[in-house]
Amino acid sequence: MHSEGAAVRVPAVEGPVVALDIGGTKIAGALVDSTGRLLVRAQRRTPAAEDGETVMRAVAEVLRELAVDPSWARASAVGIGSAGPVDASTGTVSPVNVPGWRGFPLVQRVREMTGELPITLSGDGVAIAAAEHWQGAARGYDNALCMVVSTGVGGGFVLGGALHPGPTGNAGHIGHISVDLDGPPCPCGGRGCVERLASGPNIARRALEEGWKPEDGAEPTAAAVAASARAGDPIARASFERAAQALAAGIAACATLVEIQVVVIGGGVAGAGEVLFGPLREQLRRYATLSFASGVEVVPAQLGTDAGLVGAAAAAYGAAATATGGAADTG
Amino acid sequence: MHSEGAAVRVPAVEGPVVALDIGGTKIAGALVDSTGRLLVRAQRRTPAAEDGETVMRAVAEVLRELAVDPSWARASAVGIGSAGPVDASTGTVSPVNVPGWRGFPLVQRVREMTGELPITLSGDGVAIAAAEHWQGAARGYDNALCMVVSTGVGGGFVLGGALHPGPTGNAGHIGHISVDLDGPPCPCGGRGCVERLASGPNIARRALEEGWKPEDGAEPTAAAVAASARAGDPIARASFERAAQALAAGIAACATLVEIQVVVIGGGVAGAGEVLFGPLREQLRRYATLSFASGVEVVPAQLGTDAGLVGAAAAAYGAAATATGGAADTG
Repeated sequence: MHSEGAAVRVPAVEGPVVALDIGGTKIAGALVDSTGRLLVRAQRRTPAAEDGETVMRAVAEVLRELAVDPSWARASAVGIGSAGPVDASTGTVSPVNVPGWRGFPLVQRVREMTGELPITLSGDGVAIAAAEHWQGAARGYDNALCMVVSTGVGGGFVLGGALHPGPTGNAGHIGHISVDLDGPPCPCGGRGCVERLASGPNIARRALEEGWKPEDGAEPTAAAVAASARAGDPIARASFERAAQALAAGIAACATLVEIQVVVIGGGVAGAGEVLFGPLREQLRRYATLSFASGVEVVPAQLGTDAGLVGAAAAAYGAAATATGGAADTG
Repeated sequence: MHSEGAAVRVPAVEGPVVALDIGGTKIAGALVDSTGRLLVRAQRRTPAAEDGETVMRAVAEVLRELAVDPSWARASAVGIGSAGPVDASTGTVSPVNVPGWRGFPLVQRVREMTGELPITLSGDGVAIAAAEHWQGAARGYDNALCMVVSTGVGGGFVLGGALHPGPTGNAGHIGHISVDLDGPPCPCGGRGCVERLASGPNIARRALEEGWKPEDGAEPTAAAVAASARAGDPIARASFERAAQALAAGIAACATLVEIQVVVIGGGVAGAGEVLFGPLREQLRRYATLSFASGVEVVPAQLGTDAGLVGAAAAAYGAAATATGGAADTG
């Protein structure tokens, strides 16, 4: 099911890409070359509780720090990956965890600092998918779901060999599909969302509610639940199994709806390893039942904390290749 | 959110298309011209309980009947829509309700009768989407889900302006995603599938289980439940509301995963009209909560029983346009 060479677009642009990865905790930036190497980087804490202009100042500081690097002058494009929802069609962002930004014109504001360079805005899940397809575990696959299971659950698709951002850059929001239509309310307004059942905080909360206690007075995190599960604690195991069940139902839905060959899973909770991946593969057999969906593979992500930057750059390189008649087709 | 003219591909082929629509009840065929007109048609009952060769003979009879028409000589392509699962990558079909066909080499067998003509095989849900995008309610939309709610629940996607069949031609199987991960077992092997909660037979079964009785000794069908619901019967209404809830969760998942602008719903159960569409629109607000998903429109299908034939032809015209460098890109 591999198609050799499909993953790596030949960049149609010469210079590096200015990449921004904007999350609720940090704002990271880098100049990324056409091999995915980070030439220079900058970072600020996200002043998430402040007003929108204060958040924007942190972005501007990151860009100014990058601009002193000599390679900035050769930059050919800008790629922005942002916590969502985003709206790539209007260039605005409304990250859930940055209340000061609601419909914030991020593309326009960045353009004031980067001039004529084309700007590609993507949701952070889409950026992760771009990164894993370009440099990571989804390389060579034409149809893939790349996920992050962490404080939240997000994702992005590669379909037909190309990134599928959707018209507004938000496609792949697997964390907020309902797999339990009568289930617990989710902060998004829905019920029984994958994230509500499978995110790190929810794994910890469920274990605590059932009587689990972290060992040695550790913080009651999903990592602590994973440690207990590894040591054989049945409540800890059950909480991971429930998360795995919800993830399996969500992944199976993706495979059944759009035909994916592989699921790449990263993020802190994925660090639990077989405590998560074991029951996930088992549950996937229960939910991905149709012939064309049942063969979907589950693999760990290969890119670490730089995935957002690499992916923002990948999306920009892909867009540039399309605009100049390169090999890529648009998602 | 419309893009004018995006729906209708200019066919790159001159003659009509030989279209086949293969279901568990009937095998229909037609010669379809580039405006979607059926020039001539033929039909046989599907001998679904018989061996595979007997089923194939019915297909052959349909083709031979079409072949006597003078326009057959000008045919430029063959489009086959089949009950699934299909495997467009190998040209084989395994319709659930035709047990004599398991991995049946339908494309090869049809080719023996149609010679050098290119053949495009799609799942029936994909064909419906092609038809509604070409001639029906999804015309002008670049991102659409087209569904049938009937004895089963199926569907297909238009994404980025093009049909999205997926690598094996099965994408869009919304009937078999789980929206109730602890829910009732589904014949597919899964649990709480959309079809298990929302198909016509399940609407009727649920109403009967709750004590509903059809009026005037009618058959206990979903149509009879709809009639009772229209007359105010609370059990009948509740059964449609539960179906609407499951459909809403499934449709919301599609909107959240791949960004669709419109959902087109046809099939016998959709004939219930507002008894279904009213609660469906209401429930959709509960499950399609993210900004980019919440605006999805729900509209009835425009094509009737010929949708399968028109869609099989549309998929073939689309493939031909791609192969000859026409406007379409492949899904």
